[in-house]
Amino acid sequence: MKKIRVQLGERSYDIVLGNSIIEGIGEELKAFHLSPKIAIVSNPTVFSLYGERVSDSIRNAGFDLLTVTIPDGEEHKNLATLQQIYNELLRYRLDRQSAVVALGGGVVGDIAGFAASTYMRGIPYIQVPTTLLAQVDSSVGGKTGVDHELGKNMIGAFWQPKLVWVDGDTLKTLPERQFRAGLAEVIKYGVIYDSELFAFLEKNKDSIMNLDEEALIHIIKRSCEIKAGVVSQDEREAGLRAILNYGHTIGHAIETVTGYTRFLHGEAVAIGMHLEARLAEKLGLIPEDQAVRIKNLIESYGLPAEKPNDIKEQSLFLSMQLDKKAVAGELKFILPEKIGQVRIEKGISDKTLRELFVS
Amino acid sequence: MKKIRVQLGERSYDIVLGNSIIEGIGEELKAFHLSPKIAIVSNPTVFSLYGERVSDSIRNAGFDLLTVTIPDGEEHKNLATLQQIYNELLRYRLDRQSAVVALGGGVVGDIAGFAASTYMRGIPYIQVPTTLLAQVDSSVGGKTGVDHELGKNMIGAFWQPKLVWVDGDTLKTLPERQFRAGLAEVIKYGVIYDSELFAFLEKNKDSIMNLDEEALIHIIKRSCEIKAGVVSQDEREAGLRAILNYGHTIGHAIETVTGYTRFLHGEAVAIGMHLEARLAEKLGLIPEDQAVRIKNLIESYGLPAEKPNDIKEQSLFLSMQLDKKAVAGELKFILPEKIGQVRIEKGISDKTLRELFVS
Repeated sequence: MKKIRVQLGERSYDIVLGNSIIEGIGEELKAFHLSPKIAIVSNPTVFSLYGERVSDSIRNAGFDLLTVTIPDGEEHKNLATLQQIYNELLRYRLDRQSAVVALGGGVVGDIAGFAASTYMRGIPYIQVPTTLLAQVDSSVGGKTGVDHELGKNMIGAFWQPKLVWVDGDTLKTLPERQFRAGLAEVIKYGVIYDSELFAFLEKNKDSIMNLDEEALIHIIKRSCEIKAGVVSQDEREAGLRAILNYGHTIGHAIETVTGYTRFLHGEAVAIGMHLEARLAEKLGLIPEDQAVRIKNLIESYGLPAEKPNDIKEQSLFLSMQLDKKAVAGELKFILPEKIGQVRIEKGISDKTLRELFVS
Repeated sequence: MKKIRVQLGERSYDIVLGNSIIEGIGEELKAFHLSPKIAIVSNPTVFSLYGERVSDSIRNAGFDLLTVTIPDGEEHKNLATLQQIYNELLRYRLDRQSAVVALGGGVVGDIAGFAASTYMRGIPYIQVPTTLLAQVDSSVGGKTGVDHELGKNMIGAFWQPKLVWVDGDTLKTLPERQFRAGLAEVIKYGVIYDSELFAFLEKNKDSIMNLDEEALIHIIKRSCEIKAGVVSQDEREAGLRAILNYGHTIGHAIETVTGYTRFLHGEAVAIGMHLEARLAEKLGLIPEDQAVRIKNLIESYGLPAEKPNDIKEQSLFLSMQLDKKAVAGELKFILPEKIGQVRIEKGISDKTLRELFVS
């Protein structure tokens, strides 16, 4: 087992990472001085795979357990599902010292974390991420929330978990498409912060795609270390943390205009990373050969890189205007200067963007 | 103008208190480095009285303004109204540097503050409280939230305002019943912390009820100072802050079982304060003469002190069990030891409570 500490003063917590550790969660919860009632939030697919083992583990550690299952998919990460969770937590009389355990991917983690952050003005929660995306990204850093028809993650809170418990074994049951989508975020860490991780991804494609345990633990650990380091320096995204949004300004817009259903988050981010690398290249920030390496790595993992032709530029513009990263009408882009280093750019002209999309 | 600082590190803020200052709010907002879009949240009654002056003041300071009016009354402090606010803020494209100005009483302040705390994971908000209750209590300290059919304030967040702007003149348009209800919280500060304030309330009933400016500013200022001091020491109610809940354990239960419609919050708290003082007397914590002074002061301001006979003890018990102050099934009471000093008591037996309610 490996431990990574997210340093946030009194809100610090550990990411614990290993193989076949999922049944250890119940024992681990004893350290947190919780009241006896615990709620698991999960979806039917994940719960059918891991629910029994996690439930037994928590019950055997002496807790009473409520299970809340919510429908699968980003389209259910909304206020209606949130209200369903509130209703069940209140009916079960979860109290202020109770914890919520989020067992699942990014949708479950985001909405369960947000429910915990607002239930009785905030109760503890624990992340047990079962998708690669959640393991390397969404379960770490305390961003919680739900989507609104006018934009993704528009309603939410910063609320840090007490623990992130990552069992690499869960990736064995993850559909390959979702696994690839998670790799988009790993590629992101390589581009924004770690050229060695980027090179590792280039050299070890086969072992990663074959779910080699050692290779997987390496890329998850490195991703979590980078994210933990960034979040520790800038919890609420006042500055540095924005670099984690590489690929996301365009990626979110793509998700929004396609109604969150056509692309997985990581797929949209993959397109966004490629387009934002090309934008950096157009602006003379990154050499062409490095932008090409980024595109090649994205495509080598079976991820989309190009904007589909049927998505209109104009709808992408409008959506980006509303994107929450747009402050006072100004769009912010994270642009690579070389593999392993990015800068934050504002004031990119509409003309430049238009050329990017139509080229 | 008087200023009281709420000391909370990087979340510190001022309570500014004066007469006829409401039109100064626009200028004041310039200090906060906000983006140009601002949203006022108010209710039709308050907005018809003060909306134009506040709007002009904010527009004259150079901001663009959205006005969101929500229905009046505690029964509308719910998730449906919250969603209405989200929709309007998003349609107006309020951004992460925008502010929400809560213009109204406790309901407006609680729900507007909660909307601000969760809009794009948290944006600034300013309290402009126009009821005595909001001026001395709910606008200060960062408790925000909405009610649920299973309990009051069950969904919410701790989110501190950037400024609390109190114009004592607004009390001249406040219905007398609401004014009296606000005085219940002022009496509370006397009992829990300040025997001099308590004595001032005993001696100056006529000037207070006649809205004498000097007397009003004195009691509002003293209340805010006490609340600011307590909140500075214990923002998230890990310990000391619980003393502010004197009268509220029973008070909230009374509100819940009567559907939030029969009593104003302060009226329910008045009954709660009297019953909890009598509980303290039964337990030998406070001398009888002091408990009598508490009851007399409550009644001298025209507030209810006795539990109405038609409210069943059993329904009060059940409601208290779910009260958010009940941690792991244990009820917490704030009990006076003398006027100006309270203690936190757990483990009061059902038998003792039953005797209290039927006596």
